[in-house]
Amino acid sequence: MARYLHDFNVGDTFETVSYTLAEEESLAFARSYDPQPFHLYAGEASRSIFHDLVVSGWQTAAVTMRLIVDSGVLRETGVIGTGIDELRWLAPVKPGDALHVRGEVIDVRPWPGNPSRGTLRVKVITVNQDDVVVMSQVANLILPVRPAHV
Amino acid sequence: MARYLHDFNVGDTFETVSYTLAEEESLAFARSYDPQPFHLYAGEASRSIFHDLVVSGWQTAAVTMRLIVDSGVLRETGVIGTGIDELRWLAPVKPGDALHVRGEVIDVRPWPGNPSRGTLRVKVITVNQDDVVVMSQVANLILPVRPAHV
Repeated sequence: MARYLHDFNVGDTFETVSYTLAEEESLAFARSYDPQPFHLYAGEASRSIFHDLVVSGWQTAAVTMRLIVDSGVLRETGVIGTGIDELRWLAPVKPGDALHVRGEVIDVRPWPGNPSRGTLRVKVITVNQDDVVVMSQVANLILPVRPAHV
Repeated sequence: MARYLHDFNVGDTFETVSYTLAEEESLAFARSYDPQPFHLYAGEASRSIFHDLVVSGWQTAAVTMRLIVDSGVLRETGVIGTGIDELRWLAPVKPGDALHVRGEVIDVRPWPGNPSRGTLRVKVITVNQDDVVVMSQVANLILPVRPAHV
């Protein structure tokens, strides 16, 4: 079932299942998109500011997207972002960590010039297995306004 | 050669080579991290607001990171972000597009409480083969301050 802009209210929350980021997946992503020593080689990582192998922050963001898509909170409507504000990597993610996501609607804003769409602003935090917030962001999502006949 | 915070000045720019995002790579990323119909199936994509298959915005961000890492602008120092401000997906990216990145230093800010590090703020735009800006962001990067003896 599609969900429309006004199906959401400020303060609505959701939470996803968790996703374990296996070391091989972490290395594969780093090789493709973030080939830096502290993502790829344990020896060099131990001498980095992280003191250990860490997952690329962009993979944390990608896994966060996957969890939101799979949650079904916007199934059929689609999770379509116009942009992200205040993306922050707050704690390292290590290969093998299990991440889950919590979201809270912070604004529901129809578009002034276009009555058919609006922006849903959602504060999204990504949390590891120890309940440490590893990433936070504010996602700006496009949602359709419910047509008059639906 | 490592580069330090004060090796950069406001107004410094860099530009990367381009990266062609093959359709198979686009589909593989979407299957892993953004499994929505408009990223995966041409038929459903044609009926979406994009009217065509499009690349996940998170893959555009990941490719942007890869281009910055490969550019060597921060080789040895490392491209380590604390966060991103004002990430905006401005135009669709299609499978087969060739992306490149331009950066401009907009702030060089030592950390008040820690003389050994600072933040480099870089406005980053990602551009396609037709010179259309498809994504923009402000990256906040951690850089070391040059030690007194170097």
